[in-house]
Amino acid sequence: MRDLHQRLDLCSINTATLGHRLSIHDTLDAVARSGFGFVAPWRKEVEAANLRDVARQLRALGLRLSGYVRSTFFAGSSPEQFAAHIEDNQRALDQAAELGAPSLIVVGGGLPPGTRSLADARARYLEGVARLWEYARSVGVGITLEPLHPMYAAERSCVVTLDEALDICHAVDPGQTGGLGIAVDVYHCWWDRHLTSHIERAGRERRIDAFHVSDWLSPTRDMLLDRGMMGDGVIDLKGIRAQVEAAGYAGAVEVEIFSQSNWWQRDAQETLQVCADRLQTVC
Amino acid sequence: MRDLHQRLDLCSINTATLGHRLSIHDTLDAVARSGFGFVAPWRKEVEAANLRDVARQLRALGLRLSGYVRSTFFAGSSPEQFAAHIEDNQRALDQAAELGAPSLIVVGGGLPPGTRSLADARARYLEGVARLWEYARSVGVGITLEPLHPMYAAERSCVVTLDEALDICHAVDPGQTGGLGIAVDVYHCWWDRHLTSHIERAGRERRIDAFHVSDWLSPTRDMLLDRGMMGDGVIDLKGIRAQVEAAGYAGAVEVEIFSQSNWWQRDAQETLQVCADRLQTVC
Repeated sequence: MRDLHQRLDLCSINTATLGHRLSIHDTLDAVARSGFGFVAPWRKEVEAANLRDVARQLRALGLRLSGYVRSTFFAGSSPEQFAAHIEDNQRALDQAAELGAPSLIVVGGGLPPGTRSLADARARYLEGVARLWEYARSVGVGITLEPLHPMYAAERSCVVTLDEALDICHAVDPGQTGGLGIAVDVYHCWWDRHLTSHIERAGRERRIDAFHVSDWLSPTRDMLLDRGMMGDGVIDLKGIRAQVEAAGYAGAVEVEIFSQSNWWQRDAQETLQVCADRLQTVC
Repeated sequence: MRDLHQRLDLCSINTATLGHRLSIHDTLDAVARSGFGFVAPWRKEVEAANLRDVARQLRALGLRLSGYVRSTFFAGSSPEQFAAHIEDNQRALDQAAELGAPSLIVVGGGLPPGTRSLADARARYLEGVARLWEYARSVGVGITLEPLHPMYAAERSCVVTLDEALDICHAVDPGQTGGLGIAVDVYHCWWDRHLTSHIERAGRERRIDAFHVSDWLSPTRDMLLDRGMMGDGVIDLKGIRAQVEAAGYAGAVEVEIFSQSNWWQRDAQETLQVCADRLQTVC
């Protein structure tokens, strides 16, 4: 396992961690100033600015992207909206290419409103990924599927385990030709007793595109916006990172914390400093 | 699949559904008056009354138990507390015997405070079940393991899938000698893409002791106390019941709804009436 001490160049900040309060320009400056080598910006922040200006600033700061966040919930849309979502995600892939992002993070959506069939939603998810991947190859950007915690199955992602995401990768790209992989986010998968074998499989199939850290607070007060800072919760962070790196992952360790009532209330510089400290100690 | 129309005699009310506001005596009267054949009382309600009086009332009303709710979170206790928890659960088994309950519902607990190893917690859970089952056999009561949704892994149950609970049953009772099984609660397992195969396995191994219904609201506003009335959420209730009954389950269909801000605010009789209607239509 890599030693992250004084290696913030291996670490990334998902901009959601700062609560979407600063402009993308101020965020990128702050992330670079704090010593991080990577950043994972959200599309809505990038779109509030000029795309070329953002790309230019990234180059000037020497910041690399660990991913571009994120797709729309296409699986959860009505059949009529599905095509529009695919097109919109193609625009996100264009932006990702311009920004030099290795991949677009895909969170595919839950159940379409008024429906109850997870199997149908999963079939739609697969279809959407197949169409996006085709386009992604044409613009030279990857697709990274991020399965979410099962508590988000209804609204955000009908795909809830690493294994399920790997099956989709295999169905779409059986030859492992590249550009289609998964994100291992500890918050979403820490509870799974098959986590070790899922990570091993992902490594064998060369599918681990991203590794996200935060922590599971006990108790958790909000299903969406109460993630913890690394070390403040119950996830075995070092244990999971060791497995991911043993499986061959050598990319960035990305912090992604949604924390309405705590970290999003603090000064961005303070949050970045605590992220830096925790990455080097408890991750 | 059984037709539940005019068959409330096949249905049960878990007393948590009424919000623990009435005395157990008033609750049992109300449940019987509404036509239900079964009830699943909580231990704290029973202990607030006289055990023999409760047993006598159940007999007089002709109400059968679909389970006695529930064990302490023994796996989540400190090593020092573990023995005390086992003893306390043995008292619950004594009570279950006196009440004529087929089994004690076991919700085994999450991570002991300050720990991060789910594997250790699961080993403790297995050890606790083995010890309780031994005692349970001596008093003629079963043990029903209830895996909970993964969002409860930290605090309530480190065992989060049916398959995992079945593995524990197999480890403790490989010969399927009886008295050790699982509860299929739709709220906890609806998201699992392996649900069908887990239910089939549970049927083959003759382990389905209980079947619980409620619904997953979208959105869900509280992780613990915002379950929905059947039909108000996204779970494919008829689909899951069909699978459970095809696997051989012929016991009660039990309603278990924790709903602080909705059903627990309503009159108990109204809640029971809506449960009765929904059981006969959308379940």
